[in-house]
Amino acid sequence: MNVMIDLCVVPLGVGISVSEYVTACQRVLEEAGLEHQLHAYGTNIEGDWDEVMAAVKRCHEVVHAMGAPRITSSMRLGTRTDRAQSIDDKIQSVTDKLAAD
Amino acid sequence: MNVMIDLCVVPLGVGISVSEYVTACQRVLEEAGLEHQLHAYGTNIEGDWDEVMAAVKRCHEVVHAMGAPRITSSMRLGTRTDRAQSIDDKIQSVTDKLAAD
Amino acid sequence: MNVMIDLCVVPLGVGISVSEYVTACQRVLEEAGLEHQLHAYGTNIEGDWDEVMAAVKRCHEVVHAMGAPRITSSMRLGTRTDRAQSIDDKIQSVTDKLAAD
Amino acid sequence: MNVMIDLCVVPLGVGISVSEYVTACQRVLEEAGLEHQLHAYGTNIEGDWDEVMAAVKRCHEVVHAMGAPRITSSMRLGTRTDRAQSIDDKIQSVTDKLAAD
Repeated sequence: MNVMIDLCVVPLGVGISVSEYVTACQRVLEEAGLEHQLHAYGTNIEGDWDEVMAAVKRCHEVVHAMGAPRITSSMRLGTRTDRAQSIDDKIQSVTDKLAAD
Repeated sequence: MNVMIDLCVVPLGVGISVSEYVTACQRVLEEAGLEHQLHAYGTNIEGDWDEVMAAVKRCHEVVHAMGAPRITSSMRLGTRTDRAQSIDDKIQSVTDKLAAD
Repeated sequence: MNVMIDLCVVPLGVGISVSEYVTACQRVLEEAGLEHQLHAYGTNIEGDWDEVMAAVKRCHEVVHAMGAPRITSSMRLGTRTDRAQSIDDKIQSVTDKLAAD
Repeated sequence: MNVMIDLCVVPLGVGISVSEYVTACQRVLEEAGLEHQLHAYGTNIEGDWDEVMAAVKRCHEVVHAMGAPRITSSMRLGTRTDRAQSIDDKIQSVTDKLAAD
């Protein structure tokens, strides 16, 4: 089963700048070889459910190892059985409709 | 690593009543033997990371098997290395403060 | 338009204990006279859209005034035009189905 | 008070293709003159709290008017009193760190 998620990892107890921790999570995703796309309030990640969730767990482990005693993440998870859909497909289907106006 | 999550599973393509699918997810959590607490807009679930995430995956599988071609869930995930904290602890720490006023 | 939301306010830059801030938000909801129900990872709030959103804004203002320089909240928002539905209704529709097994 | 949100509007009871509704929401944001950026699982929106929330309400109204009897949205909301931060700033702070490796 494939999944597309949108993940936002929020470390607590490390001050207000979180970009260092977000950067570490980006490296986790690259090492995992997962399709991903950073945006201003999270990251889209796409792939096999177990691989994606293993990367999410690894993000929490890495951020704790960097010194954050507490993490609160938020995540959207989309699965579908009717057809495959990539990160690019989802954006394209909206931009096509906007352009058609 | 323990995790507390708040999960809201939303099946698409099956009309507007989703309680049947939420009920099926409650059964998944009971079968998994995981501590959980339903509220009006999701379910708190607490336990070992791998067991909790296996139950989330099982919820998606079961809801697809019931006929939903597409699912979009939202989830909060909390982990901490400083101490253990249960569903009851989290509520109690706020209700104690409210009562102390 | 009525709305039911599930709100989780997360202050950053104030250490790892957030119950003091959650408690302050509960007071905002009580003062606003809005139907609400605390759970272990957020609060269900129900009422007129504008009143509910004014309370969410007031929560951010109060938590900033308590000293948090940064806040990242997560929220689910449900609206429906087919019928009214309360916090209790939503839970009841699932617990009835569980009991019917 | 400025806010940056990440919004994902999910119409229920209209089948499994939601891009038509997402497109309508993009138009709401353009008409409101708000800074926004679509991604594969939501949209980043930035601006004055009241203007951003008025646009979120307008999205729900428009999607209901298009025929969706029920909507369940998820949203992240970030506010900060220490400094201003744009959508581009947030992405830049991470890409700079990745590039510095």
